[in-house]
Amino acid sequence: MNRRMVLYMVGQMVKLESALMVLPLIVSIVYQNKCVFSLLIAIAVALVLGFFLTIVFKPSNHIIYAKEGFVIVALSWLTLSLIGALPFTISGEIPNYIDSFFETVSGFTTTGASIIGNVEKLSEGMLFWRSFTHWVGGMGVLVFIMAIIPSTTDRSIHIMKAEVPGPIVGKLVPRLKDTAKILYLIYIAMTALEFLLLLFGGMTWFESAIHSFGTAGTGGFGVKGDSLASYNSYLQWVITIFMLLFSLNFNLYYLAILRKFRSVLKSGEMWFFFAVYAVAVTLVTINIYPLYENATTAIRQAAFQSASIVSTTGFSTADFNLWPGLSKAILLLLMFIGGCAGSTAGGLKVSRIVLIIKIIKRELKRMLHPRSVGNIRLEGKKIDNLTISGVTTYFALYVACFVLIFFALSFEDFSIETNLSATAACLNNIGPGLGGVGPMSNFSEYSFISKIILSLAMLLGRLELYPILITLNPSTWAKK
Amino acid sequence: MNRRMVLYMVGQMVKLESALMVLPLIVSIVYQNKCVFSLLIAIAVALVLGFFLTIVFKPSNHIIYAKEGFVIVALSWLTLSLIGALPFTISGEIPNYIDSFFETVSGFTTTGASIIGNVEKLSEGMLFWRSFTHWVGGMGVLVFIMAIIPSTTDRSIHIMKAEVPGPIVGKLVPRLKDTAKILYLIYIAMTALEFLLLLFGGMTWFESAIHSFGTAGTGGFGVKGDSLASYNSYLQWVITIFMLLFSLNFNLYYLAILRKFRSVLKSGEMWFFFAVYAVAVTLVTINIYPLYENATTAIRQAAFQSASIVSTTGFSTADFNLWPGLSKAILLLLMFIGGCAGSTAGGLKVSRIVLIIKIIKRELKRMLHPRSVGNIRLEGKKIDNLTISGVTTYFALYVACFVLIFFALSFEDFSIETNLSATAACLNNIGPGLGGVGPMSNFSEYSFISKIILSLAMLLGRLELYPILITLNPSTWAKK
Repeated sequence: MNRRMVLYMVGQMVKLESALMVLPLIVSIVYQNKCVFSLLIAIAVALVLGFFLTIVFKPSNHIIYAKEGFVIVALSWLTLSLIGALPFTISGEIPNYIDSFFETVSGFTTTGASIIGNVEKLSEGMLFWRSFTHWVGGMGVLVFIMAIIPSTTDRSIHIMKAEVPGPIVGKLVPRLKDTAKILYLIYIAMTALEFLLLLFGGMTWFESAIHSFGTAGTGGFGVKGDSLASYNSYLQWVITIFMLLFSLNFNLYYLAILRKFRSVLKSGEMWFFFAVYAVAVTLVTINIYPLYENATTAIRQAAFQSASIVSTTGFSTADFNLWPGLSKAILLLLMFIGGCAGSTAGGLKVSRIVLIIKIIKRELKRMLHPRSVGNIRLEGKKIDNLTISGVTTYFALYVACFVLIFFALSFEDFSIETNLSATAACLNNIGPGLGGVGPMSNFSEYSFISKIILSLAMLLGRLELYPILITLNPSTWAKK
Repeated sequence: MNRRMVLYMVGQMVKLESALMVLPLIVSIVYQNKCVFSLLIAIAVALVLGFFLTIVFKPSNHIIYAKEGFVIVALSWLTLSLIGALPFTISGEIPNYIDSFFETVSGFTTTGASIIGNVEKLSEGMLFWRSFTHWVGGMGVLVFIMAIIPSTTDRSIHIMKAEVPGPIVGKLVPRLKDTAKILYLIYIAMTALEFLLLLFGGMTWFESAIHSFGTAGTGGFGVKGDSLASYNSYLQWVITIFMLLFSLNFNLYYLAILRKFRSVLKSGEMWFFFAVYAVAVTLVTINIYPLYENATTAIRQAAFQSASIVSTTGFSTADFNLWPGLSKAILLLLMFIGGCAGSTAGGLKVSRIVLIIKIIKRELKRMLHPRSVGNIRLEGKKIDNLTISGVTTYFALYVACFVLIFFALSFEDFSIETNLSATAACLNNIGPGLGGVGPMSNFSEYSFISKIILSLAMLLGRLELYPILITLNPSTWAKK
């Protein structure tokens, strides 16, 4: 283990965080919030820690392997959340530090699960920081660092693989640094476009920024207790469309920029995603139609909530906890699918689902013809056996994590629906669940131990299990 | 596809069923039940169909492959249930044939889920037949046929593999026919022992037989509305112990007969099973202690319900639906584990869980050392890569079936807890679930479509997915 390099990268990341906190600082100064001081302290802490780590642990040897990649990512995200939680507690807006930590992890992991009962009481500075963490966490902090720091080498693919979701992580262009830059440019452009469309629809610049961050990162933090229910239908439709757009593989946008439209249209993952979405919207619309005054409203509600859940954003325009059983079951199932690989969305990822279906089909064929060897292809490429066994093992590990987290939550005497959907909502980085953690409720009722477990679940989900599990494994740290 | 051989084997099986129905016929004559006539009709139908199939489709070519094995098993179980349901409807004791079919599938698959509101109204003959199907389905009808018909060749391993649960099916002794005989002899001896112990504890011979059948097959049909709640603690403990005994791999009993006790004690699967059970009982006892008058009662209740669920039997001595959330969550998780491979229990099977944990551990190791090749061993034997990928694929397929069945049930407006636990209870062949299908409720509220889907779920679970899926796949039937 190249420990110096690990700590050096964590230091780089903490320095970046101090810079990122300047934005909410400006907001809090503009709005004359009392939280200015708390942000200044947090920036100072981040600067001191960042410079300490990067100076003391400046590595002579920059070589890292998969192991270091995982540990860098896990520790960076943990430190990021520990420091990012400071302003909430120091300002007194979220008095308890564990609550602040939960909220910050929820922000960076783009979950959007909240312990705040009345979000409208938060200051603009804190609201901005809370939502800005979504935007930062969406594309990945370390991908951002790779885009900007000069020392990025192709060895850093180990970091990128550990941070970018999906079963297969490739480079768009030969140089990793350029890949990271392209990803961030697309991300910034799309966020800016949504910002303008929301501004045009009547939101203030503040609201537009908050909701663009929330959509881009597929996070879900907003500014109102009823999420987006009180905004007009134009704004709700804009957000519906952008939630879907941010759930697509960003490679598709790069292909579109290169005018390779045919390749875009050939994406099986994209079509599968849209097909699932279309079926869900249709069934939910029919199911909830009797609850709404007209078909347009029912469609809008179904389209919004389905997009919000499948993209793992978690905004809401209705209390779907009060919807009939079928709609609730559909939303619960959508929670597990999530968006496409290489997007900012959480969940299992569509490409994994597609691969698992193909693997099952091949197994059924093999049962009948034991000597047959079927190849599995995804997006036109042949998938090797190691990736295939990796996908099914990932799935089993995912279920194992799900079961353990659900079991740990069961020590709290809430309904099975509540605990089960809380687990699903955190592990898949969605935010609201059903029952006691429905869209109009929050996670404040859970004990501090459960909040720490759910924070871990959010990190497990966002980083796709392995970085956290490998960092927690003592043998990773053993000296040879 | 050797269609003649498939139909011939189904015919053999139907003939066997006509013989099996003679037992409930005798019971109904002894008790002077009105259902005598309905059993006679069913026996006649079975005889005519059985002789028709075995005479008309007498095969010249006895060779079968994996495909035929799967189809024989699936069609046999379906036909068995269709005919076995006749006496219930003809006698008028379960007026609707779909209800009778559900009840019979539930019997043969050793599920024990019921649509009968007041079971005490059934005649002795029908109660006996209902519970006897558990005993027949527990060890497998086709295994029984292999033990008795002279034409059993080692080709029949394909049938055995398709009917006996667990990831690896081996022969105890070189000849398959002898393996089948040994399995049935152990099964009969253990059932007889339980019968005597129950008789000794004060049950009538009829009750002893019913509950021995229900335990041996890990089924769960009883004779009273409150299952075993009104029997004394001695009887409850006897059944607790036998539910656990019937969840162990029968190979262990064979080893014990051969006095290879060291090999028995080396069984990792057995220890894992007991460890899970011990943890469950401890936690449930602590959790339910405030509800009961003393520790002895709390332990007995926890031990009984945990054994009943993990063995997938489904008897109950308490309405665990009213227990606190932690206990309900533990029982829900136990539902998925099930018993050991090569037992009469359902669920995923302990050996699969153990293998999946080992596969995950190896994957975590591989993440750190990409070139490492770790072998996976189970019960001292090295497991080949095809079996390993088979286990993770089976798991993914199992989850996929679970999700589809749950989705189909969601069209009924019951709670998520009810539909989820109904799916778990049927797919894992347990019987009672939670919520609306708890131990003191039943499945009668579901629509006929849902009852057919749940019947399919029970067959999928008992036959471990592949036989049913392969038989439903049109390409299995396509001519080359």
